[in-house]
Amino acid sequence: MQDPGAGADAYTPTDRTVPTRSADRARYDRESVRAILDEGYVCHLGFVRDGAPVVLPTLYGRVGDRLYVHGSTGSRPLRMAGAADPGLPVCLTVTHVDALVLARSAFHHSINYRSVVVHGLAYEVTDPEEKRRALDALVDHVVPGRAADSRPANRKELAATAVIRLDLDEVSAKFRTGGVNDEPEDLGLPHWAGLVPLRKGYDTPVPDPALAPGTDLPDYLKVL
Amino acid sequence: MQDPGAGADAYTPTDRTVPTRSADRARYDRESVRAILDEGYVCHLGFVRDGAPVVLPTLYGRVGDRLYVHGSTGSRPLRMAGAADPGLPVCLTVTHVDALVLARSAFHHSINYRSVVVHGLAYEVTDPEEKRRALDALVDHVVPGRAADSRPANRKELAATAVIRLDLDEVSAKFRTGGVNDEPEDLGLPHWAGLVPLRKGYDTPVPDPALAPGTDLPDYLKVL
Repeated sequence: MQDPGAGADAYTPTDRTVPTRSADRARYDRESVRAILDEGYVCHLGFVRDGAPVVLPTLYGRVGDRLYVHGSTGSRPLRMAGAADPGLPVCLTVTHVDALVLARSAFHHSINYRSVVVHGLAYEVTDPEEKRRALDALVDHVVPGRAADSRPANRKELAATAVIRLDLDEVSAKFRTGGVNDEPEDLGLPHWAGLVPLRKGYDTPVPDPALAPGTDLPDYLKVL
Repeated sequence: MQDPGAGADAYTPTDRTVPTRSADRARYDRESVRAILDEGYVCHLGFVRDGAPVVLPTLYGRVGDRLYVHGSTGSRPLRMAGAADPGLPVCLTVTHVDALVLARSAFHHSINYRSVVVHGLAYEVTDPEEKRRALDALVDHVVPGRAADSRPANRKELAATAVIRLDLDEVSAKFRTGGVNDEPEDLGLPHWAGLVPLRKGYDTPVPDPALAPGTDLPDYLKVL
């Protein structure tokens, strides 16, 4: 185990990234943060519109310590980020639910989870090269290696797509792992207690009906 | 198929619940919204702190058209909701990722998903009876029927737990279903295209080592 908050390869905790409760479940090391981010499919992106919060699910990609979100040039958070000076305050959260934790007591029911919360300013990506790398990262985030096995975006598609960037700087990971934490006096109760892990991974892929003849399922999609 | 936006059993669309893009993917009927909410384990709760958005994963429960979120009395959004007058502006979002959509073109990569976004004011629940019902709903949301098969919260546990309520009123569901939408001129490309469904459901439960002798796995946890 690494020291959760220390070392050059960790993010510096801030007032916003130290939880008010269960601070022992927080971690700041880059390795934990990246592993959680890389396993996710969608993030939940929060921003403020007319003083109220908005939380939308969206795909994302990572290049080093930068996260990218894309969308139509007409989509609201992307337009807002493009217009904001210096940038649009956002909070980007990725969560994995690993297991249900069933305790004998209602109070101690919980879930085992891993989450990452990123605070910062989102900027529109205007450099064409960075935009291309970001879009590759977004596709590779869905399936690693997939960007190289698909037709790259053409000029029209690039023009229709906006990309915003959020740096990993003010960021924390949070975990709940392990078993049931019932009170000692409840251990003899007749209720079943334990973990119910949730299934993960790919189910059998379903090919497009119009697949070009002889197109085999790529190795990176083989179900283990 | 139901008419997505009409009828007495539907929520009324508002400026905040009509998306700027892909409005054809939005639905407002109560049945779709409830089905998506009831299938989730965590929601992503957004609120505004010092002018910036915060998005946190948390468990939730539903009773009719009311959602409940709970936590320690010391947790930040729960304290903020208790202190806010008339209530704390929140956005609560639940998302299911059903399948990866791999297109021949990078541009048309997507995911099949179902999400619900709820806007509104969160209020602290102070009525003891409503609080008990809310806590039962939170446990039953993890596993339906589980509240009746666990020890109810005692006075000390109730006092340590805060519950906030958010009414389902300004709410929408959003879907992406179906197959790959490649451009006609790309259909002959040699890249595999199709859907990769994600696995769902329970894996084999892991009993607590201190389970009382003779405590069998309940039927509601049997893996199909």
